[in-house]
Amino acid sequence: MPSSTPRITAIETYDVRFPTSRELDGSDAMNPDPDYSAAYVVLRTSQEDEPDGHGFTFTIGRGNDVQVAAIRSLAPHLVGRDAAALAADPGALYRDLIGDSQLRWLGPEKGVMHMAIGAVVNAAWDLAARRAGLPLWQLLAEAEPEWLLTQVDFRYLTDALTPDEALGLLRRGRQGAAERTALLRAEGCPAYTTSPGWLGYSDAKLTRLAERAVAEGFTQIKLKVGADLEADRRRLRAARAAVGPGVRIAVDANQRWDVDQAVQWVSALREFDPYWIEEPTSPDDVLGHAAVRRGVAPVRVATGEHAQNRVVVKQLLQAGAIDIFQLDATRVAGVNENLAILLLAAKFGVPVCPHAGGVGLSELVQHLAMFDFVALAGATPERVIEYADHLHEHFTDPVRIRSGRYLAPTAPGFSAAMRPAALAEYAYPDGEFWATELAVEAGPPRPHPGP
Amino acid sequence: MPSSTPRITAIETYDVRFPTSRELDGSDAMNPDPDYSAAYVVLRTSQEDEPDGHGFTFTIGRGNDVQVAAIRSLAPHLVGRDAAALAADPGALYRDLIGDSQLRWLGPEKGVMHMAIGAVVNAAWDLAARRAGLPLWQLLAEAEPEWLLTQVDFRYLTDALTPDEALGLLRRGRQGAAERTALLRAEGCPAYTTSPGWLGYSDAKLTRLAERAVAEGFTQIKLKVGADLEADRRRLRAARAAVGPGVRIAVDANQRWDVDQAVQWVSALREFDPYWIEEPTSPDDVLGHAAVRRGVAPVRVATGEHAQNRVVVKQLLQAGAIDIFQLDATRVAGVNENLAILLLAAKFGVPVCPHAGGVGLSELVQHLAMFDFVALAGATPERVIEYADHLHEHFTDPVRIRSGRYLAPTAPGFSAAMRPAALAEYAYPDGEFWATELAVEAGPPRPHPGP
Repeated sequence: MPSSTPRITAIETYDVRFPTSRELDGSDAMNPDPDYSAAYVVLRTSQEDEPDGHGFTFTIGRGNDVQVAAIRSLAPHLVGRDAAALAADPGALYRDLIGDSQLRWLGPEKGVMHMAIGAVVNAAWDLAARRAGLPLWQLLAEAEPEWLLTQVDFRYLTDALTPDEALGLLRRGRQGAAERTALLRAEGCPAYTTSPGWLGYSDAKLTRLAERAVAEGFTQIKLKVGADLEADRRRLRAARAAVGPGVRIAVDANQRWDVDQAVQWVSALREFDPYWIEEPTSPDDVLGHAAVRRGVAPVRVATGEHAQNRVVVKQLLQAGAIDIFQLDATRVAGVNENLAILLLAAKFGVPVCPHAGGVGLSELVQHLAMFDFVALAGATPERVIEYADHLHEHFTDPVRIRSGRYLAPTAPGFSAAMRPAALAEYAYPDGEFWATELAVEAGPPRPHPGP
Repeated sequence: MPSSTPRITAIETYDVRFPTSRELDGSDAMNPDPDYSAAYVVLRTSQEDEPDGHGFTFTIGRGNDVQVAAIRSLAPHLVGRDAAALAADPGALYRDLIGDSQLRWLGPEKGVMHMAIGAVVNAAWDLAARRAGLPLWQLLAEAEPEWLLTQVDFRYLTDALTPDEALGLLRRGRQGAAERTALLRAEGCPAYTTSPGWLGYSDAKLTRLAERAVAEGFTQIKLKVGADLEADRRRLRAARAAVGPGVRIAVDANQRWDVDQAVQWVSALREFDPYWIEEPTSPDDVLGHAAVRRGVAPVRVATGEHAQNRVVVKQLLQAGAIDIFQLDATRVAGVNENLAILLLAAKFGVPVCPHAGGVGLSELVQHLAMFDFVALAGATPERVIEYADHLHEHFTDPVRIRSGRYLAPTAPGFSAAMRPAALAEYAYPDGEFWATELAVEAGPPRPHPGP
């Protein structure tokens, strides 16, 4: 074996937490005080001049250490792997991890272990794109359809999507790819912003941020709802007054309601013309989403940030349960599974509007959305990518938003890398920020309430 | 505060692994070499003479350390709790844990974190039953319906089961409870055995164990299938010859198939009269199970050991996807969620035949099945509890099987406690067994295959 063959020599993990709960950035009806966090992983290669791979799972604070432990448990599958072989076929890593039958028991294919697999699979794609010298969206958009097919796991999907059908979708998707690439480079992809609508913001802040969003060129904003109906009506009225009739206002209930309650609550908001209702009920409730959709039509139904794997997505589409699918970059087992999900959505003609309310989710998901635009679903008018205006400064290749649109990344990789200074300062519990915070708080961070 | 009020002072966790892969006990088409393991927890109380609470999550080896880490992350919710208050209302703990919005993000209500909640909730019920001096089945069977109702979370269920309906089921369920309790104490509950049918056993071993099962009084056995159709036909023929026409033979594919493949494979087994096909496809595929059921009728369809939470169970029932639900004691968030699941099954008239292919699952699930028999669904002829004949010697209150039936436990508690000697010997990686094993193996336990 030549001594110059680069191998994965180590995985490094970081428990990074940003104190967003202080300002209630990110607050909603189910998550009143999230601390946006990343269980972050680096696949280190054996040579200084060879690129590493970066990835992470997004969490909201407690439990991020468990998520990190899950990523670390995958080390035996990673250390020693040939980096070139990994880059040439990230699907082989994906299959090895999904196929580890003992780890599988902890899901299967859901929750902490599945998201840990996603973090390392995404890191492998970051490494692959860096080695190729391309931003990931471009690597995917220029890949041969036959090769992309090898990256997809069709197990449990064949009653809705066969490999042959997927190949057809990929081939048709490439028609006009050159033109759409030029358009993408010139104009980017449309975004919508959730920043005005966090539940913990005052009405004055909501109004100010909504007006700013319109001024910045956004054609859609999103409001959190679901804690208090009268407050929701008041806030939606204020938002509609701030943006006018031509700007879309999506609303998001973060899983608060049962089916009947969802239908009633959305009806009570209808006079303000909500564009979609997001996560009206349990993310696991395919039949429930379908029932809500029937009840709230023509208001659209959107879900996906907690869709645990491609099998749930398949059923949401088979059941006609949603109008919009909200792909998430770190919820499932990485790019490979998200390719399957994009193919399912394309088969069923449901537009994908990715979720990005989190730290680093924008950075990752823009690549998947841009691949979808250039080389799969093409130009679908309803397609928008979520954007929230915080925490981007912690990334070495942060998203670039201009006039309400994501500009196409140009740097090689998946835009996943965080600045070392951020990793150091917000490492939990020993980074500078938390070491100070936790010393100040008297006693344990979360005193037990007692009887 | 009186100094004699017992409180939870600590949680102790143990990563315990039994080397079942050596004998291929537990092997099936998806899990060829499981090491039956427990992420085990003890809620210690502040006083020597006050009972502790024991619980665990069942896993099959790798990742058991991650499962333990998840349980440990719940310590702030537990340490300091008044033990009497906990015993009087385990639902309060359940609600606190499910309602921790930051931990919730890691599911929600699925996978590693949800099962960790299940382990500690079960430990709380073990503590409650020990304090009451009753086996858990009896505590549940004698509890007031109004109180049991408070232990159930109806969120996301109300389109299928309302609190009022549940109260009605519980009240009706108590009619005849005294008679059924007497019957239970005299005769126990029917079991079926999976021991003959592990995939890795030779045909001779299968035949021998099948004949033994019939001699011991079992009226149903189960065979693992799904890896090789010709082998499955050969083994099923041998099993049918061994047990004769009057003994039920269930078959279990452990999620191996897609929908169409499941229908075809089961058809090819039909001449041997399989009683049910278990886990024919992804446990997340409600619509898929319904399609399989339509295709294989009149062969029954069973699933449940990987049903992640009550929302999935609700949909399996709403969609008419199953004939039998296979409740699992450690997959969901403990007794509280399993109460909801038993109520759903009773509402839809689907018999519950609990899953117990694991370590300690029999010990736990017998209590839930016996409660169901005495005080909820009553005497349903199809109701059988799985039994596998291994590892019971590690428990202080092991199951008692006589003439193919589970005898009712009499010791206080949930039968969850393992012998300290077992915890010490099979602790991973430092217990006597594994310390020796791992020293003998050259290099890391799972060398990377490499290109």
